[in-house]
Amino acid sequence: MSGFAKELMLRKDAIEYVSSALDFPWPLKSRFAHLDESLGKRSGKNRLSPLDYPPFSRSTRDGYALRSGDSAGASDALPVFLRVRGEIPMGVWSEAAIGEGECLLVHTGGMIPEGADAVVMVEDTVKAGNWVEVRKALQSGENLVFRGEEIVRGEKILGAGELLDYRNVGILATLGICSVELLDLKIGILSTGDEIVPAETPELPPGKIRDANAWFLEFLLSRHGFPSRRLEIVPDCRESLAESVMKNLEEADILILSGGSSVSVRDFCSEIMENLPSPGLLVRGVNMSPGKPLLMAGCLPDRRLVMGLPGHPLSCSIVAITVLLPLLYRLAGIEALPFRTVQARLASDVFGKAGVEEFIPAVDLNGEVLPMPGKSGYVSVLRDAKGLIRLTENEETRRKGETVEVLEW
Amino acid sequence: MSGFAKELMLRKDAIEYVSSALDFPWPLKSRFAHLDESLGKRSGKNRLSPLDYPPFSRSTRDGYALRSGDSAGASDALPVFLRVRGEIPMGVWSEAAIGEGECLLVHTGGMIPEGADAVVMVEDTVKAGNWVEVRKALQSGENLVFRGEEIVRGEKILGAGELLDYRNVGILATLGICSVELLDLKIGILSTGDEIVPAETPELPPGKIRDANAWFLEFLLSRHGFPSRRLEIVPDCRESLAESVMKNLEEADILILSGGSSVSVRDFCSEIMENLPSPGLLVRGVNMSPGKPLLMAGCLPDRRLVMGLPGHPLSCSIVAITVLLPLLYRLAGIEALPFRTVQARLASDVFGKAGVEEFIPAVDLNGEVLPMPGKSGYVSVLRDAKGLIRLTENEETRRKGETVEVLEW
Repeated sequence: MSGFAKELMLRKDAIEYVSSALDFPWPLKSRFAHLDESLGKRSGKNRLSPLDYPPFSRSTRDGYALRSGDSAGASDALPVFLRVRGEIPMGVWSEAAIGEGECLLVHTGGMIPEGADAVVMVEDTVKAGNWVEVRKALQSGENLVFRGEEIVRGEKILGAGELLDYRNVGILATLGICSVELLDLKIGILSTGDEIVPAETPELPPGKIRDANAWFLEFLLSRHGFPSRRLEIVPDCRESLAESVMKNLEEADILILSGGSSVSVRDFCSEIMENLPSPGLLVRGVNMSPGKPLLMAGCLPDRRLVMGLPGHPLSCSIVAITVLLPLLYRLAGIEALPFRTVQARLASDVFGKAGVEEFIPAVDLNGEVLPMPGKSGYVSVLRDAKGLIRLTENEETRRKGETVEVLEW
Repeated sequence: MSGFAKELMLRKDAIEYVSSALDFPWPLKSRFAHLDESLGKRSGKNRLSPLDYPPFSRSTRDGYALRSGDSAGASDALPVFLRVRGEIPMGVWSEAAIGEGECLLVHTGGMIPEGADAVVMVEDTVKAGNWVEVRKALQSGENLVFRGEEIVRGEKILGAGELLDYRNVGILATLGICSVELLDLKIGILSTGDEIVPAETPELPPGKIRDANAWFLEFLLSRHGFPSRRLEIVPDCRESLAESVMKNLEEADILILSGGSSVSVRDFCSEIMENLPSPGLLVRGVNMSPGKPLLMAGCLPDRRLVMGLPGHPLSCSIVAITVLLPLLYRLAGIEALPFRTVQARLASDVFGKAGVEEFIPAVDLNGEVLPMPGKSGYVSVLRDAKGLIRLTENEETRRKGETVEVLEW
C-alpha cells in the first residue's frame, strides 16, 4: 500500500547516492548585493583581497615607536634613554622617520614612522622633557602590525558558500568591500494536502490543520543561509500537483514538497518525480525513523532537486535537519556539517529497534541527555529539545548512563 | 595618562554591578510584526496559546482507529478480527463513531472517530473484505494524539525574550498566530575617531581606516536577535561627541560607542558618561585582556545603557562577546548564555599572566584547541577561530595537554 521498496537505503547512502547522481556540488549562481543585506546569507563566489592589509604599518598600543635594537637590555633597573622627536597624530599620513636613539609618540591604530620596528607601551616608560626612559627590551614587531602583515593582496577573504556574519564582515568592511556576490539558489516550498490551510486562517475549518511545516522549513533553511519562498498549498489531486510542480520547477532550483501525509499525495508525488527528466526519482523511502516516507528526485540537465518530505511535523523536521540540510550543503560545496555532533550520557533508557536508524528528540538534564516524551505528531518538540539522539541501525535500546551520539542545535 | 583606576573590576563583577545599578531586567517594549519578518528576532512578551491543540483527536499513522480494549492479546499467531465501518478521509470533520468490535480506516493527520482510543498501523493488519485482522495489541493513546494533548489553552508557547526561529515558528503557525509582538529595543552604534571613515570609502585617504567595528557589532547583535542601527562617525572632538551622544540617546535605549581608540576619544567618552544623569559612569576599565579600556554607563530614570568599547578590532570583538552580549541578555531577562562554554585540551602551550582574565582566540586542531597566532590589531582572527580560550585571573601559562575553558561559537 505505501509503495516503498522492502530494502530501504540507509540515510547516509541516500545522501551519497543523490549527491553523486545529481553531480554535486553544482556551479553556484550568484547575485550582487550590498553588504547591508548580506547578513546570514552565503557568498556565491570566492572573494580575494584587492590589497595588502594593513595599508601602512600601524601601532597596536599607545606608546613610543622605536628601533627595537635600541631597547636591547633595557629594564627598570637599567633603562635606555631615547630622544622624543615628536608625535604622529591619529588619522594622518606621516612621512616622519626616526633614526638611531630616537622615538616618536604614536597612538593605538596610528601610523608607525619610517625606521621604527617596535612600540614600547607608555606604561613601560618614564617621560622626562624631550627624553623618554625605556624600561623594557622590545622585539622587532612588538606592539605593531607591519604593512601587509595580516592580509596579502590576492588572499582569499571569503569562500564560495561561506556564511556572511560577524566573523567575516569586519574584514570586508576594512577592505572597503561593500558589494558582495551572494549565492543565488532559488528554493521553493510547496505545501500539499487537502487538510492543509494557510497559517493565516483565523478560524480553523473542521478537519483542517494550518501549514506549519512550510514555515518551519523556511525558517530552518534561512537560519542556515539558504533563503527560500513558501509557494502555494496544492490540493490532493494528481493534476493540480503535477501542474504546480512543473510550473514551479521553471523558477526553482530546489523544490520541496511538504505537508502531504496522505497515501494518495505520496503516491502522486512519487509518480510526478518518476516522470521528471533524467534521472527522475532517485530515492523512494529511507531506512530511518521517523522520516521513512521520504522521496528524492532530480533533473541533472537543468540542475533541479525535488524532495518530498513526510507530513508529520516531527518527521518533516528530522528529515529536513538530517537529509535536506546535508544535501544543500553538498550541493553548494560547503564542507562544514549543518549541525554539530557530540557524545553524551543518557539520563534514562532510550528505546530503539535494530535495523533502522532512529532520531529521538532529547532535552538537557544536568549535562546528560534525556529522551523526550512526546509523540511524532507533536509540533512543539523542537522548541524544548536541545538536539536529537541518534541510534544507528546497529543500535537497539541503550541504557541510562551509556554514551550516545547527539546532534545538537 | 589613560585615566583608569589601578584596581580594575573583574568582568563578571562589572556585569553584575551594571545589571544591578541599572535594575536589569528592564520591562520590555514591543511592537507588532507579521510572522514573516520575525525570523531571528526576539519576542517582547510571553505568548499564551489561545486554544487546545490538537483541536481534534488525530491519527499519527495510516491505519485503523479502534478501541484499544478490543485488541487485547492480539498477535500474529492470534489476530483479532474487527469490522471495518469505512474510512475517514483527510481534511474533513467527521461525526463518525465506532462501537465495540469495530474500526475505521484513518490517515496520518486525519481525525479519529468518536469511541476510538488507538490506531493500529496498516503494517500490523491484514485486510479481508469488510474485516481486518489486527495482529498487535495496542495501548490507549497509541498512534494518535488526543485533543488538547500537546498544548493546553493558556499554556506559554513563546517566552518574553525568546528568539523566533525554526524551533518555535511551527507552533505559532499551527495555532494561527501570524502577528507577533517583537522586542523593541533601540540599539545605536556610534563610531568615533578621526581615523575612521565609512566602509564605503573607495580610496582610503592617508592614515585612515575603514569602520569595521560598527559592521561587526551590527552583525553580531543581529545574529543574537538584537537588531541595531549604525549611526554616524563622530570626529575626535569633545563637543561633537557630546552632542552626538545626547542626540542619539533621545532615541536609543542602548548606545554603543565604537572605534575610537585614541586616548583623547576615550577621555571624552569617559567625561560624557560621567555627566549622564543618575547613575552615569559605572565602570571605567575592566580587568580583562584584551578589552581593558571598556567604559560602561547608564541612566536609570530613562533606562539607557551606554558602552564605550575599545577600538582594536579584536578587543572590540571580545568585549562585545563577553560583556556586551551578556549585558543585553540580562537587560532583556534572557536566562540562556549567549555562547556555549566547553572544556578542551590544549594542542600547545598558551601564555597567560596571573591577575588578569584573558581571552585568546583559538582554532580547532583534531578536537583540541590551538591558540591562534596573530596580534590584537588583526581584523581577520574571528573568521578562522572556533572560539576563545578563557584564562581566569588565577590562571597563568597553561601547558599542552591541559584542559582549558573555551567559549565556542
